[in-house]
Amino acid sequence: MSAPIRGPIRLGMVGGGEGAFIGGVHRIAARLDGQFELVAGALSSTPEKAHASAQALGLDRSYDDFTAMAEAEATRADGVEAVAIVTPNHRHAGPAIEFLKRGIHVICDKPLTATMDEARQLAEVARASRALFILTHNYTGYPMVRQARAMVAAGDLGTIRLVQVEYVQEWLTEAAETKGSKQAEWRTDPARSGAGGATGDIGTHAYNLACFVSGLEPQALAADLSSFVPGRALDDNAHVLLRFAGGAKGMLWASQVAPGNENGLRLRVYGEKGGLEWAQEDPNRLWFTPFGEPKRLITRNGAGAGPEAARMSRIPPGHPEGYLEAFANLYAEAARAIRAHQAGEAPPLGTTYPTLADGLAGMRFVEACVQSSQANAAWVTL
Amino acid sequence: MSAPIRGPIRLGMVGGGEGAFIGGVHRIAARLDGQFELVAGALSSTPEKAHASAQALGLDRSYDDFTAMAEAEATRADGVEAVAIVTPNHRHAGPAIEFLKRGIHVICDKPLTATMDEARQLAEVARASRALFILTHNYTGYPMVRQARAMVAAGDLGTIRLVQVEYVQEWLTEAAETKGSKQAEWRTDPARSGAGGATGDIGTHAYNLACFVSGLEPQALAADLSSFVPGRALDDNAHVLLRFAGGAKGMLWASQVAPGNENGLRLRVYGEKGGLEWAQEDPNRLWFTPFGEPKRLITRNGAGAGPEAARMSRIPPGHPEGYLEAFANLYAEAARAIRAHQAGEAPPLGTTYPTLADGLAGMRFVEACVQSSQANAAWVTL
Amino acid sequence: MSAPIRGPIRLGMVGGGEGAFIGGVHRIAARLDGQFELVAGALSSTPEKAHASAQALGLDRSYDDFTAMAEAEATRADGVEAVAIVTPNHRHAGPAIEFLKRGIHVICDKPLTATMDEARQLAEVARASRALFILTHNYTGYPMVRQARAMVAAGDLGTIRLVQVEYVQEWLTEAAETKGSKQAEWRTDPARSGAGGATGDIGTHAYNLACFVSGLEPQALAADLSSFVPGRALDDNAHVLLRFAGGAKGMLWASQVAPGNENGLRLRVYGEKGGLEWAQEDPNRLWFTPFGEPKRLITRNGAGAGPEAARMSRIPPGHPEGYLEAFANLYAEAARAIRAHQAGEAPPLGTTYPTLADGLAGMRFVEACVQSSQANAAWVTL
Amino acid sequence: MSAPIRGPIRLGMVGGGEGAFIGGVHRIAARLDGQFELVAGALSSTPEKAHASAQALGLDRSYDDFTAMAEAEATRADGVEAVAIVTPNHRHAGPAIEFLKRGIHVICDKPLTATMDEARQLAEVARASRALFILTHNYTGYPMVRQARAMVAAGDLGTIRLVQVEYVQEWLTEAAETKGSKQAEWRTDPARSGAGGATGDIGTHAYNLACFVSGLEPQALAADLSSFVPGRALDDNAHVLLRFAGGAKGMLWASQVAPGNENGLRLRVYGEKGGLEWAQEDPNRLWFTPFGEPKRLITRNGAGAGPEAARMSRIPPGHPEGYLEAFANLYAEAARAIRAHQAGEAPPLGTTYPTLADGLAGMRFVEACVQSSQANAAWVTL
Repeated sequence: MSAPIRGPIRLGMVGGGEGAFIGGVHRIAARLDGQFELVAGALSSTPEKAHASAQALGLDRSYDDFTAMAEAEATRADGVEAVAIVTPNHRHAGPAIEFLKRGIHVICDKPLTATMDEARQLAEVARASRALFILTHNYTGYPMVRQARAMVAAGDLGTIRLVQVEYVQEWLTEAAETKGSKQAEWRTDPARSGAGGATGDIGTHAYNLACFVSGLEPQALAADLSSFVPGRALDDNAHVLLRFAGGAKGMLWASQVAPGNENGLRLRVYGEKGGLEWAQEDPNRLWFTPFGEPKRLITRNGAGAGPEAARMSRIPPGHPEGYLEAFANLYAEAARAIRAHQAGEAPPLGTTYPTLADGLAGMRFVEACVQSSQANAAWVTL
Repeated sequence: MSAPIRGPIRLGMVGGGEGAFIGGVHRIAARLDGQFELVAGALSSTPEKAHASAQALGLDRSYDDFTAMAEAEATRADGVEAVAIVTPNHRHAGPAIEFLKRGIHVICDKPLTATMDEARQLAEVARASRALFILTHNYTGYPMVRQARAMVAAGDLGTIRLVQVEYVQEWLTEAAETKGSKQAEWRTDPARSGAGGATGDIGTHAYNLACFVSGLEPQALAADLSSFVPGRALDDNAHVLLRFAGGAKGMLWASQVAPGNENGLRLRVYGEKGGLEWAQEDPNRLWFTPFGEPKRLITRNGAGAGPEAARMSRIPPGHPEGYLEAFANLYAEAARAIRAHQAGEAPPLGTTYPTLADGLAGMRFVEACVQSSQANAAWVTL
Repeated sequence: MSAPIRGPIRLGMVGGGEGAFIGGVHRIAARLDGQFELVAGALSSTPEKAHASAQALGLDRSYDDFTAMAEAEATRADGVEAVAIVTPNHRHAGPAIEFLKRGIHVICDKPLTATMDEARQLAEVARASRALFILTHNYTGYPMVRQARAMVAAGDLGTIRLVQVEYVQEWLTEAAETKGSKQAEWRTDPARSGAGGATGDIGTHAYNLACFVSGLEPQALAADLSSFVPGRALDDNAHVLLRFAGGAKGMLWASQVAPGNENGLRLRVYGEKGGLEWAQEDPNRLWFTPFGEPKRLITRNGAGAGPEAARMSRIPPGHPEGYLEAFANLYAEAARAIRAHQAGEAPPLGTTYPTLADGLAGMRFVEACVQSSQANAAWVTL
Repeated sequence: MSAPIRGPIRLGMVGGGEGAFIGGVHRIAARLDGQFELVAGALSSTPEKAHASAQALGLDRSYDDFTAMAEAEATRADGVEAVAIVTPNHRHAGPAIEFLKRGIHVICDKPLTATMDEARQLAEVARASRALFILTHNYTGYPMVRQARAMVAAGDLGTIRLVQVEYVQEWLTEAAETKGSKQAEWRTDPARSGAGGATGDIGTHAYNLACFVSGLEPQALAADLSSFVPGRALDDNAHVLLRFAGGAKGMLWASQVAPGNENGLRLRVYGEKGGLEWAQEDPNRLWFTPFGEPKRLITRNGAGAGPEAARMSRIPPGHPEGYLEAFANLYAEAARAIRAHQAGEAPPLGTTYPTLADGLAGMRFVEACVQSSQANAAWVTL
């Protein structure tokens, strides 16, 4: 909870107009620690809607589209220093490229893009840009996820053998996309979401989390994708086998059609010496079992939790921090990185956030799942 | 997540300098929904510390003390519209009175004051003031607490018979107050905390929550207070029997010496037709059992949750909201009430926050616990 | 799971005819480890019903009443060596006295009797008898209850400060006794149950468990009893404050009117160095928190569990043992004690079962609760 | 808890001498409801050990080997009516065949045999025999498993889409088979266990449970088996994808190397209308979510539980029944079937137990897993 040494970072937003879900989340996350101030936006691809949304938010600088915004802001003395991109997947690459080209830092929602082509274009620009690119795989912002990662890295589990991860939802059990749900519409639409349904929307989160915590390098996968709801173009369930460098193996299950599950992201990692279990719906607790000893409950800021969790945490143990705080942690990491970048310094020790590489890995994950499934769950190298 | 119709409310703060816990919480809570902007403060009773803290926070208007602050801010055109008081208990009444006298709204941490005398003085001023007084019994801001209250009020449980509440901690199991913990020092010091230890610090929360959800009027209590740690002047454990108007009964347990408990605030309410269970450390879930039917899990924004929970909630089910969000909900209620007050209108339907009356009830609870315990747990009328 | 060195002990039963609940439990418990064989019974106070029940059970020796049974069995070479008494409370003392007088061991359901007078008469006979008296406070047979007791005794928690116990049910939320439930009829009838309702039926279990695990000597209690259901003669809810020798304190809650609770017997014990938590509905797990360390899960026969739990356990960890096994553990303890008694030896080290003293303590608990409640929850010395 | 209409069924046992685990479980299960009496045995393949074990159990008729036993018992008027086979897998077929040939009912531990050849031989004999063959896939004896099966069959979940099952253990995380564990020795030995390690020992249970509850017919699987512990000949981890007739899909995970898991058998079934979740370590609870409604907790004998669970249950809700009771339920089903068979009648309505067909399906499951894994997780038809 240390304070800004100067005023907040000036933030712009692309997408996130009225009715959007994730835009509001980004705004709260950006605001929570006082490190960002939203000053400009192109909040919708429909200019009227964009301006109405801006007015509702009390936002003075509202643009017709992201290109106009990028051009104008890049030339203002008080122009945005960073931009949050919270559009549907097929509208990530366009604005990201525009802002990166102008040296404005990009905080982009996942997955990276809708198509692999877009991803490659974006990657090229990002690599050439002097600006930072931060991908909001927000679950990596949970304190106990950081704790788990640190414990694995410290060898508390020994060599990792197994990574079991799942992200299970129920909301698409019925054909919500035909019943007026805008969220369901674009998330089941290949034109807007890309080749992956559950795979892209939540499978990438599960995959990213598994890699983030285990530190393992995935080598191959075999995937069996399904679209259980009649008429649905994208997968709503993914059964995936994983193989990692060094011999570890895993299973990944992503589903949007499992009644009784809201956002059931759950990770279990097992090594030669111990095991870890974590669930996103109960995020302040991490279960650790050293083989041959009783299972231990490590709580955020409680006994057994280390500095990696503490730096992601605002309040003492027993008062739960949740999804918005985890999301805000990525914004706080972004702020540290941006300020260091502006000062020409290295970011503070421990600063960690998902990057372009994670985004490309996620795109490759979706692509490989689709390839494998089309080949009857044959192994595809990652 | 509706937006401000004008800029944020200008907020001041008394207390909350570096090293304080609850001040930081109030700042996040005020900021989270973008409804308040911190613009001035008297952040410590030591001016140097106050100014250093203000500088660290990037706060321009820093005052030597709350009196100077009240006087100056009341005369500025852009003076604070509301002030958050986050000092130790014995320094609540003083600043609250100064700001209320000048028509500035007060958002005050609990318990109301350190002594009943102070409470009465404050009450007198508050009643005479045109300004609002909001007490941050923050647990009433949890969405599922609102849900529970609404269900009881709607008669889902029938006539209430039993209210079992507890707030259990471990942090004072040893004499932390002699080992350098500032939090422990003032919270175990009668001069700064008042007559109640666990009773005042957490017992008042439990008591407030029990009354808030059950809607019952307490009539009498019998209390057995203990100070288990040698040399501790205030109670660190309270065993309390409760009787309510209409015949309902209850038990309240507050403890700071129960290893294995972080912030174990737990409420169970039982009526002729059903029962409810809620725990603060798992706040997004409410368990409801209609007698003779299977127990049901009602989640924040999930099936079975009603509008009272929804208006306290920012994101869909399955992504946990926590302590800071609940705290921010009280600030959001305060913002609604303040804006309505400024507009000369009634606050939006459903606006609910703890008031002076709750503060006085809490003070009476502590006083009655001490009286009862001194009389060997005799019944004391409330 | 060591085997009998000779054939099973010949067991008789008084009560437990068709429609009874606890009789069937005793029969399974007696049979589970192969240590007892049921050979005779006076299964009902109505001879016809007794004989019909005996026939249904394939029991050859069926008696009109317990007196006839005691007389006949005492003179047979193959007469019963022990008798299980599973009648309603007001019919415990009579048969127990008859069998004890004849040197036949008695395994008696709790509470000891319906009245204190009966209890004293029974105690007198029991003390004069050469036979053993075993009271089935069956929850003391759970392996993890033994584990908890051993940990407290070993000082793992340091000096005990707090004992919080509750036994919470829902089944009498409505007036089941007027709707044909025989169980409800006798358990709410002072003539058959004695002075205590919830207090006697389940409060005695909670009280016994608290004392068994904590090893503390109760000194005084203050009780607020209620009969929430109109027309109910006995208490259906008990709120009790406890004080123990040495300064520890406790709360006991027994209720039959809390919807959502089946057999919610839950014990929490806290000392200067740590805390323990156990719940009957999840009996294979014990939570232990050494102060300042992560909470640990100790499972039956798992890591961290000691010999006191292992000797009460039949199978490896992870395969749950339940209520019947715990009940059978008391029968196994009884078998060990009876066989040692027959051999003129001391029972095997560690043999532990509830005795007459526990029964008298339970009776005194009920009596004191009623006295205290009639005196407006004044303290009553135990 | 209805009583035998005649004396208990005379039971023999093959295997289960001292030091064996599962033999003791069968003996308790057989005894628990008073339906069987153990009267003869060939308790070990080493005659001296067999006789010593018999003596320790107080068993008069002890045989040198199962052939001698089958011959002798088949000719006695009071010979065994049924025999329990509790040997290692490679010694199932031999005795089963001997007894079946003589018309003696067989209750056999799983998996059916060590090899597919043995399985086929046994199947041929079993089909020709007039005696019953009961396979103790004991988890099908849990009341809430029966409840789940009944709910699926009744259409409460609609058409099933997903079956997620896992059986996860930790006990072979290290090379216990080289450190003196007899259980580990034979269970990791292809000569005694067959081609499957975790697959055969626990994977077959998971597979059987998935089919039993879902009622689905498996069509194909793809398996990735591992032996993580160096030097281990059989798999200790199995990752399996499943496809069922009608389009449902599933995942099965069996592991013996996941620290923190004791007997983590967990089943989740999802259909178009709802979902079910059950875990063996908490067996008295079943979670049911009708899509769009709150999750419901159905407890054994509690509200919402039906007759299929009730007939597998002995005591009221809230008093847990466990593993031994579930195992005993299969013995009770066997007793019903045997008595009906002896009377020339159909077994009572609802009598359900795993049969030869389940055993063959389990053998095929193991075989297919090994085939698939050897073919790099290619799909293998079942």
